Amino acid sequence: VPLASKVVSRRYSTVTFLSDYGLDDEFVGVVKAVLRDLAPHATVVDLTHGIRPFDIRGGSLALARAIPYVPEGIVLAVVDPGVGTDRRAVAIEVADGAGVLIGPDNGLLAPAVAVAGGAQRAVELTSAEHQLAAPGATFAGRDIFAPAAAHLCNGVELDALGDLIDPAVLTPGMIPLPREEADGIHAEVLWVDRFGNCQLNVSPDDLGGGDAPTDVWTVTLGDERRVARPARSYAELGTGVVGLVLDSQGMYSLALDQHSAAAELSLAPGDSVLLAPLADDADGHPSTPVRLQPRR
Amino acid sequence: VPLASKVVSRRYSTVTFLSDYGLDDEFVGVVKAVLRDLAPHATVVDLTHGIRPFDIRGGSLALARAIPYVPEGIVLAVVDPGVGTDRRAVAIEVADGAGVLIGPDNGLLAPAVAVAGGAQRAVELTSAEHQLAAPGATFAGRDIFAPAAAHLCNGVELDALGDLIDPAVLTPGMIPLPREEADGIHAEVLWVDRFGNCQLNVSPDDLGGGDAPTDVWTVTLGDERRVARPARSYAELGTGVVGLVLDSQGMYSLALDQHSAAAELSLAPGDSVLLAPLADDADGHPSTPVRLQPRR
Amino acid sequence: VPLASKVVSRRYSTVTFLSDYGLDDEFVGVVKAVLRDLAPHATVVDLTHGIRPFDIRGGSLALARAIPYVPEGIVLAVVDPGVGTDRRAVAIEVADGAGVLIGPDNGLLAPAVAVAGGAQRAVELTSAEHQLAAPGATFAGRDIFAPAAAHLCNGVELDALGDLIDPAVLTPGMIPLPREEADGIHAEVLWVDRFGNCQLNVSPDDLGGGDAPTDVWTVTLGDERRVARPARSYAELGTGVVGLVLDSQGMYSLALDQHSAAAELSLAPGDSVLLAPLADDADGHPSTPVRLQPRR
Repeated sequence: VPLASKVVSRRYSTVTFLSDYGLDDEFVGVVKAVLRDLAPHATVVDLTHGIRPFDIRGGSLALARAIPYVPEGIVLAVVDPGVGTDRRAVAIEVADGAGVLIGPDNGLLAPAVAVAGGAQRAVELTSAEHQLAAPGATFAGRDIFAPAAAHLCNGVELDALGDLIDPAVLTPGMIPLPREEADGIHAEVLWVDRFGNCQLNVSPDDLGGGDAPTDVWTVTLGDERRVARPARSYAELGTGVVGLVLDSQGMYSLALDQHSAAAELSLAPGDSVLLAPLADDADGHPSTPVRLQPRR
Repeated sequence: VPLASKVVSRRYSTVTFLSDYGLDDEFVGVVKAVLRDLAPHATVVDLTHGIRPFDIRGGSLALARAIPYVPEGIVLAVVDPGVGTDRRAVAIEVADGAGVLIGPDNGLLAPAVAVAGGAQRAVELTSAEHQLAAPGATFAGRDIFAPAAAHLCNGVELDALGDLIDPAVLTPGMIPLPREEADGIHAEVLWVDRFGNCQLNVSPDDLGGGDAPTDVWTVTLGDERRVARPARSYAELGTGVVGLVLDSQGMYSLALDQHSAAAELSLAPGDSVLLAPLADDADGHPSTPVRLQPRR
Repeated sequence: VPLASKVVSRRYSTVTFLSDYGLDDEFVGVVKAVLRDLAPHATVVDLTHGIRPFDIRGGSLALARAIPYVPEGIVLAVVDPGVGTDRRAVAIEVADGAGVLIGPDNGLLAPAVAVAGGAQRAVELTSAEHQLAAPGATFAGRDIFAPAAAHLCNGVELDALGDLIDPAVLTPGMIPLPREEADGIHAEVLWVDRFGNCQLNVSPDDLGGGDAPTDVWTVTLGDERRVARPARSYAELGTGVVGLVLDSQGMYSLALDQHSAAAELSLAPGDSVLLAPLADDADGHPSTPVRLQPRR
């Protein structure tokens, strides 16, 4: 049961790890080496290390999407352009201690903390004896965050890692909400995945409820206007038909069958999209298939 | 001993995992979080998640190459362009239960099942209580396949996961065979690896037996013709010499020493190649070294 | 405690693994499958598999940077352009047996062995019964190195894996030293990380001691000359200001705040850099900010 049970003095056995370190350098490996050295009983689950460098928003959204599936334990998240400055390093307890999120206090953790029910206790990671000494201050993942995660796994109390701080002072995260206006729903691309699917900040409730709207929608991207068909799978879309596919998060994503909607529609995270119901009915709407580029 | 021993009622402790999810999104991490949550005793071995998006053939070949080395347990494989449609989700038992392969029934699993000795039992994964409820149907890895793997690890019987189906109705895989004709052996590039080596669907038996042919061969690629020297290592090839190197699968691959044969010869998976013995003897053959491009 | 304790007959439980295999093929997965099959109790810590193909120097530096953090156990490292030739495959014992490094004897392991205190015993991996039989000789990671690691984890004695050899005959590694001349310190880029930081082979001692020099330096790259400010964090640099940031290894790296110094300054590993103190004082020095390219 993820992040749910109640125990007072506990040891953790899982560290779920997300970062923008990439996998081409040894950063991730060194963090895991430190965890293995200090808390050999703990298992590391890598969420992803492919967050774009410095992309706090992208990292925070990935973490928030994943958190409902993360097992009880520690969450270690590092996207940290302010490393080495006086930005706070924090550990945030959620779900009566079933989970502790560790990382920089720059908004990265906030959406996941909210999804997990909110912060109950928080500490600033200031206890030097629970950190690794280092010649330079550029690798807090290795020197501050991983040791904190390992010590919690070993049963060290949260408040031994530093001073308790008021969770209300933690940096909030930013998740953009869709805006309904006269011309339709002003939405935003939250995420472009490997397959080119473009997740919008729009759920079925935003489109009038039900979990598979039967209407056809127009999608305006800059100067361009497309028709998009609601769908429950990619493969049911015809070739070149833009779909509004209900994704695994329960959000709508702009998608094409076996092609990248992001590439075909030139969309990236943060881009604006306007959704409006198509005036004509579904059968009579003008057909504007995408002319597909060659597959990668 | 991989996939060999016989036990009747068993728990598994290893899940070997391959997909086209990539590592830049959190897909792989969420699948592993679900596995960790439901079957904390199981260890995940990632084969690769770098299969090109939607490339069922590429995924099936990677899985078939790896399967002789995969330990007893569950194999979870997801390359699934038909996710959310009525394509079957299946679990296939092999080797008297030493292994169970889980994934979409689209040909992805078939070559590996054949290498493992063939399907003995198969179920369609229809038991809703062994799946995760989800708002959208686009992430079967998380909602259907990972839970099935975890439940089998926990000792749930195969036929509790859904209805038994006749293994004969499973979608077959396609592994192209070389064709011997008057002008030589018509072969195909099965795989281009990171180093640019181009594995052909040609083994020593196809070239007349023995495990290191001493003849020199001509290789015709489209309009171009090259001389290729059989070799047992890359480094024994001279600079720019195309080798026909017996690879770790016992197949021949077109290769260069410390350079990418795929880049130099413009080869990709699926490309046709014609092999023919060189008329002249090995010492007198014309030398046609590749003019190498700058190293990456 | 990394690589320190003394035990005579021991089993190992961690295999730390680095290679140039990449993650797009199943090479890494198959090595880990073999480890799991032969030594199921062992945990694998992946340092990185993103070393550039054939880049022995890059691999050796990554391994040397990581080794102080690697837990007791086996280190498996494979960057092996000479695979299948008569280059030696070796296992090297360090730290009274707390660690054994396994890989090709081509200089890859040497810097890490030195950091770990030097080789105490070494064997050439020649025992066929401790290897996997294979049709071709191109995948020593799977057939020679992984089985050796697994057997050591299982308590097999080092000298059962092959003949002891004199550690003095092992191929040395090459770590370039900075050169102080009349015009300044002639340095070299050792490493460019994902964020574009360019680690130099220069430590505070080379710049006159202290751990954060307060002087301003000029950096000459080919024909170009820049001013660089010593800094302890990236974020304290202004936009476009080149920093000489003391990194997590205690080395100086050329860096920019949230931008790639490597891209802006066109630097790659192995490039030469000349550092000299700026004649003017810090406040009066000419300002030469980098005109930043668009962010990735």
